[in-house]
Amino acid sequence: MSLHLIIGDKLYSSWSLRGALALELSGAAYTEELIKLGQPDTRERLLKHSPTGKVPLLKTKHGTIADSLAIGEYLAEQFPDAGLWPKDIAARAQARSACAQMHSGFFALRGNMPFDLTRNAPLASTPPDVQADIERMLALWAECRAVATETGPFLFGAATLADAFFAPIAVRLRTYQVKLPADAAAYVETIYQWPAFKAWHTAGLEEVGQ
Amino acid sequence: MSLHLIIGDKLYSSWSLRGALALELSGAAYTEELIKLGQPDTRERLLKHSPTGKVPLLKTKHGTIADSLAIGEYLAEQFPDAGLWPKDIAARAQARSACAQMHSGFFALRGNMPFDLTRNAPLASTPPDVQADIERMLALWAECRAVATETGPFLFGAATLADAFFAPIAVRLRTYQVKLPADAAAYVETIYQWPAFKAWHTAGLEEVGQ
Repeated sequence: MSLHLIIGDKLYSSWSLRGALALELSGAAYTEELIKLGQPDTRERLLKHSPTGKVPLLKTKHGTIADSLAIGEYLAEQFPDAGLWPKDIAARAQARSACAQMHSGFFALRGNMPFDLTRNAPLASTPPDVQADIERMLALWAECRAVATETGPFLFGAATLADAFFAPIAVRLRTYQVKLPADAAAYVETIYQWPAFKAWHTAGLEEVGQ
Repeated sequence: MSLHLIIGDKLYSSWSLRGALALELSGAAYTEELIKLGQPDTRERLLKHSPTGKVPLLKTKHGTIADSLAIGEYLAEQFPDAGLWPKDIAARAQARSACAQMHSGFFALRGNMPFDLTRNAPLASTPPDVQADIERMLALWAECRAVATETGPFLFGAATLADAFFAPIAVRLRTYQVKLPADAAAYVETIYQWPAFKAWHTAGLEEVGQ
């Protein structure tokens, strides 16, 4: 199967990272195309691929799929043995619920702590709504772990789409130096040790010669 | 299977409507519990059911599922013959992409045109970002129809989760009296003639004695 992933800058595009991690989970071979964000021709270049004008996009023999969650579901169907979702029904329902909540919420955290792999500094001050988002996020991770039926350091044991979706949050928590309880800190470290994430991280820093 | 749906006010909770329509598509029997929004005890009542504090919620034998999209995917898995997603792979990928885009976007439209089944008046003026959202929405519907492989008046022929997700937009377009091209107007009418939607609409108006 020919799969072609279109992404934005690895340093800044948290949604692109989700798409790339989903592909890595699938084990499928794919090609990658980076469209630099914030350039005069960015929108024009994106619109050539999809009317959404957004990344990530996955070009497949079944058409161009916009949106990281739809990309994840497509890959989960196409590669049913790769374990993109947890095998247990209850765990899978929780994983999907967690990803959908990420997809449609946590705006204070996202807006006030933009994704930036080069950052290494706390917020000057943490607004209450950001603090509330962080606390809700940690609770959500604990809810995932509570229904996991497999052992392992990721939210549901082995890595799944849920970890692909929350990897950008782990980055924010680390790069903004948020103080974390031990279990959350261990999860952030799990993401940073995930080979698929490490490859993205390294490539991102190389983009700017760091 | 015991299924219990927790919703907000039928007049105002567009996400609850999506959950209810998904359940109707599944054909499953279910019970319904309405938690009135905007009351002093609303949040406390919601938190008893889920830490998200939001509706809809679906209580199942596999746990409580928060989020309308996760509810839809759960029901699609549990009732594989009910056709919640289009059968064709490309159409299904597009349907999921469309729902995910709805889930994570169209904020200008959602923010400036709150869902209210009792409304029947245009906006005093339509901000450019709202107009852009409306135009993008109509284009997205056309993209769905372009890949549909079945005939019928809904986005992919017969009703699917995509229609459950866009029914609240059809309501906004009608209740805010947005002028529409013929194909979009026909789709809005299709939603209004959908028995599952009509039942919700009627029940909503009865809540306030209209």
